[in-house]
Amino acid sequence: MSLPVPTMEAPPVGVVGLGQLGGSLAAALVAAGRTVTGWDTDPAAREAAAARGVRVGRELSGVVVLATPIPALATALDDLDVDPAATVTDLGSVKVPVLAALGERFGGRFVGGHPMCGTERSGHAATDPQLFRGARWAVCLEPGTELPRWLRVAEVALAAGASVVPVTAGEHDAAVAAISHVPHLLAAALAAAAADAGPLALALAAGSFGSGTRVVGSDPAFVTAMVEGNAGPTAAALAGVRAQLDRPWPELVAAGHAVVTRPQDRRTVRVPLDRTALLALGRAGGAVERRLAAFVEGWVPA
Amino acid sequence: MSLPVPTMEAPPVGVVGLGQLGGSLAAALVAAGRTVTGWDTDPAAREAAAARGVRVGRELSGVVVLATPIPALATALDDLDVDPAATVTDLGSVKVPVLAALGERFGGRFVGGHPMCGTERSGHAATDPQLFRGARWAVCLEPGTELPRWLRVAEVALAAGASVVPVTAGEHDAAVAAISHVPHLLAAALAAAAADAGPLALALAAGSFGSGTRVVGSDPAFVTAMVEGNAGPTAAALAGVRAQLDRPWPELVAAGHAVVTRPQDRRTVRVPLDRTALLALGRAGGAVERRLAAFVEGWVPA
Repeated sequence: MSLPVPTMEAPPVGVVGLGQLGGSLAAALVAAGRTVTGWDTDPAAREAAAARGVRVGRELSGVVVLATPIPALATALDDLDVDPAATVTDLGSVKVPVLAALGERFGGRFVGGHPMCGTERSGHAATDPQLFRGARWAVCLEPGTELPRWLRVAEVALAAGASVVPVTAGEHDAAVAAISHVPHLLAAALAAAAADAGPLALALAAGSFGSGTRVVGSDPAFVTAMVEGNAGPTAAALAGVRAQLDRPWPELVAAGHAVVTRPQDRRTVRVPLDRTALLALGRAGGAVERRLAAFVEGWVPA
Repeated sequence: MSLPVPTMEAPPVGVVGLGQLGGSLAAALVAAGRTVTGWDTDPAAREAAAARGVRVGRELSGVVVLATPIPALATALDDLDVDPAATVTDLGSVKVPVLAALGERFGGRFVGGHPMCGTERSGHAATDPQLFRGARWAVCLEPGTELPRWLRVAEVALAAGASVVPVTAGEHDAAVAAISHVPHLLAAALAAAAADAGPLALALAAGSFGSGTRVVGSDPAFVTAMVEGNAGPTAAALAGVRAQLDRPWPELVAAGHAVVTRPQDRRTVRVPLDRTALLALGRAGGAVERRLAAFVEGWVPA
C-alpha cells in the first residue's frame, strides 16, 4: 500500500476522544508525520496521547475527528475552540443517524466516517498505532458533501494505513448490518440456545461454538446500542439470514463456502475525483489506496 | 489434570485410520506409555505413525478405535484381524446412527465415543499428540453398555489427555447439534446473506464477520454429511436459535452475554461406577478426570 507523502498542505488534525480508536488514530497520524492535537475529558487518556507525541489542547482546526461514543458526539465539541472552517468527521459505527444529528449542525463541513477495526478491548490502554493498518475505512459521500473536504478526511484514513471505501450513509448502514450487527445477534442467539439445551451442551462446546460466539463477550450495553441504533437495516439483514436458513442444507452450506473461499484477486484502477465514480468503486467492493493529483488510485475485486 | 498411571493391566490399543484424529490419538497414547497398533489403507499415513512409535499391523486387540470417516466405519475392520473379545469404539461426530450401525454388529462390545476437538486441517500431516489435551471426550453409556468396557474406552481418552463426558447417544446428538452442527449452518447463512447484500458489504467485513464465518471454510461435503447425519436434533436446535432471534434485542444480547461470561468455577466430585451416577455427572456439565479403584473422580460446574 502506498501512503501519501505528507506535504506542507496536509491540514492539522484534531482528535476528540483519546480512547482505543481516537488514541490509536492520533498516534498513527503522529507516526505518519501529521500534526495532531488531541483532547479527552480523562487526564490519563491525555497523558497517554502526549507520550506518543500528540499535542494536548482544546484548539482544533483542519480535520477534526470526533472519536467519542455515538451518544456523546453531539456535545463532544461543546467546551472546545474549533475553527469554524474545520472539516468535521466521526468514527461511529452507524452513519444515517449520525449524519442526521451532525449534518444539520455542520452542514457541508461534516463528512461521516467509520474505520472497520477495533477489538474487544477499549480505552486508552488499548491504543495501537497499527490498529488501522490494512483496515477498510468507510468515508461518506452524500449528495451535499464537499469533495475537497471528503478528500481531506480520506487522506487522514490513508495516512493511518487504512484504505478508503466511498459510500453513502445508507449504503454503509445496510452493509454493516449484514457484516457486523447481525453477526452479534446470531452469536447471542447461538449462545442462548445452547444454554437452553443444558449444561451438557455447554460442556461439550468447542471450536465452532467458540468462534461462533466470540463477539458475545462484548459489553451488552454497547452491542444493544449498536443494533438499536441501526434497527431498520439490521432487521432487514436478519430477515436475509433467516431466508438463507430456509434453504436445503447442502445448498446453504455450499453457498456459504463459496463466499468465504471466493478468489481474492484485485486489479488496480484509477478513479476520477467524481462522486458517482467514487461511489461506484465502493459498490463494486473496491477501495481507494492513495490520492494522486486529479484522481485517486484503488482496486476492485477482479 | 491427573492422568492414570499406566499399569500392566492397561489393554493394548488398536487404531484404524491414522489421519488427523487417529494419528494424533495413536501418537498421544504411545507418548503415554500405551502399546498401540495402527492401520491405515494409505502407506504414507502408516509411515507417519510408525515414525511416532506406533506399531503398524493388521492384528488388533484390547480397545480398537475406529478413526475413519463415518461412512467407512461399517467396513473399517473388514480386512483386519481383530480379537473377538476386543472392545470397539469410534470417534464419529454423531452417535445414534453409529450406534445403530455398529451396535448390532458388535453388541455390548461397542462403546461410542466422540472427542470434541480437531481443526480445519485433516490428514496424517495434521497429526498432533497434544490434540486431545484438555478436550472433552463424550463416551456413550447406553442401557446395554458393559461398564468395564466403557471404563477401558474412558481410560484411553484420559490417557490421551482428555476428560470424559458420560452421555447417552441421544443426549450427545442433541448437544452437538446445538454447539457444533447449528453453528456451521448459522455461519453459512451469515456468509451467504452478506454476499446477497453485495460486494460493498463483503469489502467492509471485519472481525465479527470473520469469527462468525470461520467454520464455513470447512469442506462443504463434510459439513453437509455432518448436519444431514444428525438431521432431527440439528433441526430442533436450529428452531431453538430461531426462537431466540424472536426475542427483543436487548434481552437477547444480555442472555447471550450471560452465557459466555458465566462463572467457570468447578468442584471436584467422586462418582461411583454406576451408569445412573455417571450420566448425571455428564448432564450436570461435568466430566471425569481420572479413574480410581471403585469410582471415578471428576468435576461439575460449581
